[in-house]
Amino acid sequence: MTEVKLSELLLKLNCLKIMPRTGWFFCNVPPSEVEDVAQHSFAVTTITMFLTDELKREGGEIDGERAVNMAILHDWAEAEVADFPYTAQKYLASPEVKTRMERGALKEMLQENPEKEKYQGLWEEYMEKKTLESRIVHAADYLSILVQAIKYRERGIRSKEIEDLWIAVKKDLEPYSAEFKIIKKIEKELSSIFRAQPSSL
Amino acid sequence: MTEVKLSELLLKLNCLKIMPRTGWFFCNVPPSEVEDVAQHSFAVTTITMFLTDELKREGGEIDGERAVNMAILHDWAEAEVADFPYTAQKYLASPEVKTRMERGALKEMLQENPEKEKYQGLWEEYMEKKTLESRIVHAADYLSILVQAIKYRERGIRSKEIEDLWIAVKKDLEPYSAEFKIIKKIEKELSSIFRAQPSSL
Amino acid sequence: MTEVKLSELLLKLNCLKIMPRTGWFFCNVPPSEVEDVAQHSFAVTTITMFLTDELKREGGEIDGERAVNMAILHDWAEAEVADFPYTAQKYLASPEVKTRMERGALKEMLQENPEKEKYQGLWEEYMEKKTLESRIVHAADYLSILVQAIKYRERGIRSKEIEDLWIAVKKDLEPYSAEFKIIKKIEKELSSIFRAQPSSL
Amino acid sequence: MTEVKLSELLLKLNCLKIMPRTGWFFCNVPPSEVEDVAQHSFAVTTITMFLTDELKREGGEIDGERAVNMAILHDWAEAEVADFPYTAQKYLASPEVKTRMERGALKEMLQENPEKEKYQGLWEEYMEKKTLESRIVHAADYLSILVQAIKYRERGIRSKEIEDLWIAVKKDLEPYSAEFKIIKKIEKELSSIFRAQPSSL
Amino acid sequence: MTEVKLSELLLKLNCLKIMPRTGWFFCNVPPSEVEDVAQHSFAVTTITMFLTDELKREGGEIDGERAVNMAILHDWAEAEVADFPYTAQKYLASPEVKTRMERGALKEMLQENPEKEKYQGLWEEYMEKKTLESRIVHAADYLSILVQAIKYRERGIRSKEIEDLWIAVKKDLEPYSAEFKIIKKIEKELSSIFRAQPSSL
Amino acid sequence: MTEVKLSELLLKLNCLKIMPRTGWFFCNVPPSEVEDVAQHSFAVTTITMFLTDELKREGGEIDGERAVNMAILHDWAEAEVADFPYTAQKYLASPEVKTRMERGALKEMLQENPEKEKYQGLWEEYMEKKTLESRIVHAADYLSILVQAIKYRERGIRSKEIEDLWIAVKKDLEPYSAEFKIIKKIEKELSSIFRAQPSSL
Repeated sequence: MTEVKLSELLLKLNCLKIMPRTGWFFCNVPPSEVEDVAQHSFAVTTITMFLTDELKREGGEIDGERAVNMAILHDWAEAEVADFPYTAQKYLASPEVKTRMERGALKEMLQENPEKEKYQGLWEEYMEKKTLESRIVHAADYLSILVQAIKYRERGIRSKEIEDLWIAVKKDLEPYSAEFKIIKKIEKELSSIFRAQPSSL
Repeated sequence: MTEVKLSELLLKLNCLKIMPRTGWFFCNVPPSEVEDVAQHSFAVTTITMFLTDELKREGGEIDGERAVNMAILHDWAEAEVADFPYTAQKYLASPEVKTRMERGALKEMLQENPEKEKYQGLWEEYMEKKTLESRIVHAADYLSILVQAIKYRERGIRSKEIEDLWIAVKKDLEPYSAEFKIIKKIEKELSSIFRAQPSSL
Repeated sequence: MTEVKLSELLLKLNCLKIMPRTGWFFCNVPPSEVEDVAQHSFAVTTITMFLTDELKREGGEIDGERAVNMAILHDWAEAEVADFPYTAQKYLASPEVKTRMERGALKEMLQENPEKEKYQGLWEEYMEKKTLESRIVHAADYLSILVQAIKYRERGIRSKEIEDLWIAVKKDLEPYSAEFKIIKKIEKELSSIFRAQPSSL
Repeated sequence: MTEVKLSELLLKLNCLKIMPRTGWFFCNVPPSEVEDVAQHSFAVTTITMFLTDELKREGGEIDGERAVNMAILHDWAEAEVADFPYTAQKYLASPEVKTRMERGALKEMLQENPEKEKYQGLWEEYMEKKTLESRIVHAADYLSILVQAIKYRERGIRSKEIEDLWIAVKKDLEPYSAEFKIIKKIEKELSSIFRAQPSSL
Repeated sequence: MTEVKLSELLLKLNCLKIMPRTGWFFCNVPPSEVEDVAQHSFAVTTITMFLTDELKREGGEIDGERAVNMAILHDWAEAEVADFPYTAQKYLASPEVKTRMERGALKEMLQENPEKEKYQGLWEEYMEKKTLESRIVHAADYLSILVQAIKYRERGIRSKEIEDLWIAVKKDLEPYSAEFKIIKKIEKELSSIFRAQPSSL
Repeated sequence: MTEVKLSELLLKLNCLKIMPRTGWFFCNVPPSEVEDVAQHSFAVTTITMFLTDELKREGGEIDGERAVNMAILHDWAEAEVADFPYTAQKYLASPEVKTRMERGALKEMLQENPEKEKYQGLWEEYMEKKTLESRIVHAADYLSILVQAIKYRERGIRSKEIEDLWIAVKKDLEPYSAEFKIIKKIEKELSSIFRAQPSSL
């Protein structure tokens, strides 16, 4: 019986392949070019693996499987409630509104999955940003946005909003850059590529 | 000075041309075909004009300008907060959360517009669904979804979700069909076209 | 019986959501990004409402409902004959050829609509550019093109043709800028934004 | 000096790669899937080559180079005036209006080309439908539409308009089917594939 | 220094977000709807996690981190050489040609990455299909194609090629269905959904 | 019986309308804007006709029909094996691998075509680059890439890869520029347009 539900869950998650990352629309990226949640999740998962491997190489202790699994599922709820835009958050009574909505959606989605407690637990851990693993996934999430912004600018996008987004994400990344040498290095490298793209187009 | 702001508002509202109507993603409509908020608003405005003219012809008293203006602006807030999906609403503590968010966004957007009170007033009237004009715009909104669903099915879309959407919208339309003869007639006609499209594809 | 026809008309007008504004193709805007007639009509209708409200605020006398309705329907004929490109007009024996074609299409389309005389009358008024309302809709039409051009340039489009289009539309707007203070102000503001986008990309 | 003009002509003709074949919009094909004039011209040129080779094999006398060159350029004017839709032709005083427009555009486009007389002559020959070569290109044009319609239906498109188009094109093809055995055979084969696709979707 | 290379690698891998899975083109899926390698890799990674967790629950011994990492990188080489189509493989002297090409591309891409041996090793393990982990990733890869095929059919795609693909993938899945109960169950469930979609559209 | 096969061949070749030219993906051109093989083949065929006519005008002896037919079919094999990317060729044991694959695909595709020997012969002649006609088609192929690159840059694309591609194609064109005056002139003209587009965007 659980497998029937797995089939349905796979079909449901397929929806992430057409679910746009809404933040880009405000930067004037058209629907035909907008990143979707599946592409984004792949990038975050990939970067999480890179960061995890680097930390291990430096002698750090990190649970690579937990980190990568967290990256895989961090945006699953969006298959039910879409990507709630960054720009809309200031109009909520509290950030908790968005969290509660996504928690509810994830719970509904995993209802009959035998591992629902594990997956919901990973998501809660991600939202709390306390463990090393969850912090690495958040850093990977921010880095993935910087990479994508550079590629959109490479295609000609020059809205004020994409520059604002860049600045905001770099700010979000600061605590992680301060904590992890590897993140600081990647961020500096991406910033230097970004600056080499004339902002004045 | 107000005109400077009008320029900015026009550029801001242009964003509605790339802002997708998220409900269709859940029906498996891909980003390249998904209706955007500007297209939708045009359809709602057009249908509002038709309904208004029909009511007038039948001797009803309706303020055509107010109705059409309300239709034009009913989704403006989405240029700031995107289209909050239907499927996400059940995960909110109350529907008021969405309303408050959109009210805040609209206020921000109109901040320096000399007619801000008029436009915000029209939006509040729309949200309350009490006046004849606001009820006509809501009916137009629902009818526009039925029309679009038929066209997507004409292109081959046969998800269970598009059938569920159809049923939900027809239900939303019921009080309006009961109240206005013209709406009942259009709804019946569209239903007959929908049924003639084999649901079994 | 008329309602059956209304259903059909709604399905017909839905076609405007996929009907491209051909002028942009000549500017090298690809099909996936090209503005469609529904989006354009929404922009023109919105700007018409803004202009109307501003004129009223300045104490002018303008029939807001008639102006907005005219904006809604000014391009309906294109659901039957597509958007005849600007660049093709010089190859016609007279501009009347295009007008006659669109008049015929609109007539066919409204054939069984109880308000056909009203709608056809509004379209004729629009084409004649004599009344205040029709002149405001024409100005709104030109302003909407300037706004869209800025947004395309924001995405990187830098064809010679988009600059030529800008110059041509500004010229078309001249009589309206001379007549209406608000239009002159918006035009100047948009021009200053346009100039701030390096044409040399 | 003529080569400079050749460069410009190549850039101009590149525009055919984004110029949609408008007839498909009326069949509910969205912009992201609509055939463009370059794709269409390639199909017509290819089919012209096949037909030419078949006629030669049967012992017919046909100038293969002239036929194929005619196919290559038969829609060049659309880089200047876009694809005038089939559905709009009945609103013209005479079919000559479209012909004159395209003739003017082609003339302008070829203005400084050393072979302008050859190319314009081939286009006139095509428009007159008298020579064997021009008749073969027209047949190829119609066959290419039948092929494309089958492929759109394979993707789920089931509008009444695509069925109407099929019938209209088959009718246009009749004189050619009557004249050329090979055309009749291809048409019959395509019809049998079309019929095997349930029209009732 | 390695971090500079990591930046470049991230920008390189971003390319997977626009790299289409070529097999779908032969099924008549248009470019605007075609799955890309990043979306596909996300699906494979997700399914790998599900399968791994299920096997663990059943008491199996599987290295979850290695399996998921293998899924993440199994198609990285395509950022350099694109997705080599299924249909082209029979024209190669041996399947080894494709393997050698991808091995070379991956090596080039990871040239300066400190973990290159680990990543290349995981890829070789994947290609050999011998370990439990690599077999699970292959099964996940096949299951992801079945899921995507169902979603394309839900949008109306009814080419013979998509049916042929279904049959071929089910055949490829057979040894895994025989080996793993969970895979057999998912495959049966998906097959029952597929069959419920009329193939006769 | 051969005609049945012709129908099938036409449907097969239709696939070239959705088959992307993979090289552009590496330049960061998104799928919604990427040139397809049919568009490309049209451009190559057109340029071949121009070059042929120019050579004839200069008194050269060239078989125009053979040249143009060769251009039409030079990429047909890609309907079976997709467009093998430029960047992947260095990972092949020898260029012969790609040639053998395409030869096999073309042979399969033409299996029952009465002119298969003619078409296969033209393709072999093209691959050998020895005859005047085949050399002209290769030059046309390279020129068409330069034209397309300029148009992509006009839309804002500014990846390092598009500049590298430009340089590589110009190098490939060198022997043809040296041999044919007309080709040198077009290349110089295109280069001057390219240089006038700031590479620094």
